[in-house]
Amino acid sequence: MTFIHTDPLKSLLQTYNDLNSASITILDEIPSPLEFMRFVALNRPFAVRGGAADWKASREWGVKKLKEVMSGMRVNVAVTPKGNADSPARGPNGDLLFVKPHEEEQDFTTFLDFIITQEKNGRLPNQEIRYAQTQNDNLRNEYSPLYPSVPPTIPFSRIALAHSPEAINLWIGNSHSVTALHKDNYENIYVQILGQKHFVLMPPLAYPCVKERVLRSANYVRDGKGGLEIKEEEGRDVPFATWDPDVEEEGVGEEEREMRELVRPMRVTLEAGDMLYLPALWYHKVSQSCNEEGICCAVNYWHDMEFSGSFYPLCNLVRNLTLEKERGKIADKIAEQQKL
Amino acid sequence: MTFIHTDPLKSLLQTYNDLNSASITILDEIPSPLEFMRFVALNRPFAVRGGAADWKASREWGVKKLKEVMSGMRVNVAVTPKGNADSPARGPNGDLLFVKPHEEEQDFTTFLDFIITQEKNGRLPNQEIRYAQTQNDNLRNEYSPLYPSVPPTIPFSRIALAHSPEAINLWIGNSHSVTALHKDNYENIYVQILGQKHFVLMPPLAYPCVKERVLRSANYVRDGKGGLEIKEEEGRDVPFATWDPDVEEEGVGEEEREMRELVRPMRVTLEAGDMLYLPALWYHKVSQSCNEEGICCAVNYWHDMEFSGSFYPLCNLVRNLTLEKERGKIADKIAEQQKL
Ligand SMILES: O=C(O)CCC(=O)C(=O)O
Ligand SMILES: O=C(O)CCC(=O)C(=O)O
Repeated sequence: MTFIHTDPLKSLLQTYNDLNSASITILDEIPSPLEFMRFVALNRPFAVRGGAADWKASREWGVKKLKEVMSGMRVNVAVTPKGNADSPARGPNGDLLFVKPHEEEQDFTTFLDFIITQEKNGRLPNQEIRYAQTQNDNLRNEYSPLYPSVPPTIPFSRIALAHSPEAINLWIGNSHSVTALHKDNYENIYVQILGQKHFVLMPPLAYPCVKERVLRSANYVRDGKGGLEIKEEEGRDVPFATWDPDVEEEGVGEEEREMRELVRPMRVTLEAGDMLYLPALWYHKVSQSCNEEGICCAVNYWHDMEFSGSFYPLCNLVRNLTLEKERGKIADKIAEQQKL
Repeated sequence: MTFIHTDPLKSLLQTYNDLNSASITILDEIPSPLEFMRFVALNRPFAVRGGAADWKASREWGVKKLKEVMSGMRVNVAVTPKGNADSPARGPNGDLLFVKPHEEEQDFTTFLDFIITQEKNGRLPNQEIRYAQTQNDNLRNEYSPLYPSVPPTIPFSRIALAHSPEAINLWIGNSHSVTALHKDNYENIYVQILGQKHFVLMPPLAYPCVKERVLRSANYVRDGKGGLEIKEEEGRDVPFATWDPDVEEEGVGEEEREMRELVRPMRVTLEAGDMLYLPALWYHKVSQSCNEEGICCAVNYWHDMEFSGSFYPLCNLVRNLTLEKERGKIADKIAEQQKL
């Protein structure tokens, strides 16, 4: 039974809930290009259990093999104090900033041993967290010796979308890294190779709930005393979701609470060999668990999304309405304060 | 260059215009199911020139053949005073009503001769207009002897949408009939067999411009004096678009004019043998021209649309925002009048 909300954004979410499942579709076989295109048309995710189980990477990769193939090579590593690369974090003066990791080149074996030891022996007090997560097509570049172990494209998505992936990314880390809630302008085919990934997913029209804020941009930098500090970057503002769907916030207003109850975050864990279609503009927060060797490793394929049609303009409308509503609330607050 | 409107509905239309062509895509070959699905995903129309030129119906139908096959059969005919079946029209007391045609069974040959004579010799003063347009799967029912001349399904849409058409409709009329601007909950494959159809098309997010009004329902009925009169139907209200994109209206306010300028109606004429994909929820107004024999004939396939995903809820949002805005304007007007 549908309760009709008078707030158009609330009734949008209600209608979406009425017409869509709260849980992800699970396939037990790779879809055909046409079947895939039906999910793209709906902008709805699916997971394929064992969809990449027969990949060379799934069959052969492990700590020994990775070290062998990448022996002597240097790779870009994201270093953070809390496993929070590309996340909102409080700066020195208490402001919420969008903080990017400290990036440095490390010997691949040293990097891998670091994350494994940390995972197996436990994290030392204040020990930094490392994550290989460059998202710049790294598997076809710095990790190119590993590239032959995965298909150069995902046939169903390449055929359906009529173009090859824009980027193929390798992700290697341990359970201390978490990727904060965000969205990308990509159709994403995400493949788990070792360990597990835990996704929290929300559709683009959850925008009114994610508390997007324009944050000043910053970087973690080594502080010279074995720690990391936050350094602001001049003149770069980033609109970024600041809601963490896993944290019970204090002091959330009635209005916000009501709105949040209308969003039903979808949760799915990918096991080694599983594949996920993460549709363009879906919000995702990603955490991870390691395999018995103490690592977590995944590969994803990013395809440019389609901006034509009605979908992108309509998502933009939801954003504009939310901003208008938020500005209205701020104006009300100011008016009230001035009365006092 | 994009001018950013502060009205979210205006900036929606502007963004849509920036990202989409104002004219229809023309294909010169039937698409594959996958190619078709890409258009469905975008909710964008296309026409295929000659896409049905090889159909038996395209090759064989004509006045002689139709009469031969349908000889002695009675068919449902929509009778109206002005060629306006299923249209807004003024009732006896001046109110705008949603008026359905008078429907009656006629001998097929008599019906066909009537429309041909009217087309060829010209319409007599106040002569009624007849149109076979039942939209109830008539080609597989009352016109079933003609059904073997068309494919039982359109392979690309049946395969892509994974279901057979809900209805296959035959349309036979002359140039005096016009189908008023409206939308349907169907993915529509429209095929011109004889004569021409002239479509005016607008995407679902043109909703703020179509002036949907809740109209009381009525029927044309024979008045017993050779004419037709409007008779209201009790208790049936129909929300219906009341904007006619071909009529220069007087007294359109600044606001409405600005909005209308942001909608770019797409026009396309189907020639005999052409095929149109008319996506679900697109507004369409349809007029027609006859072939040298004096008739216009078309067949269309209606597939149920998909309500899951984000698209339908988002179209609903546009509707709710428009209604909210219109209610706001009415409230302003009342407040102003009360001040006077
Ligand atoms: O695996 C992760 O940590 C994040 C993945 C992600 O954000 C992406 O694939 O876009
Ligand atoms: O051909 C016509 O007159 C109208 C067609 C139409 O409205 C439809 O196919 O939905």
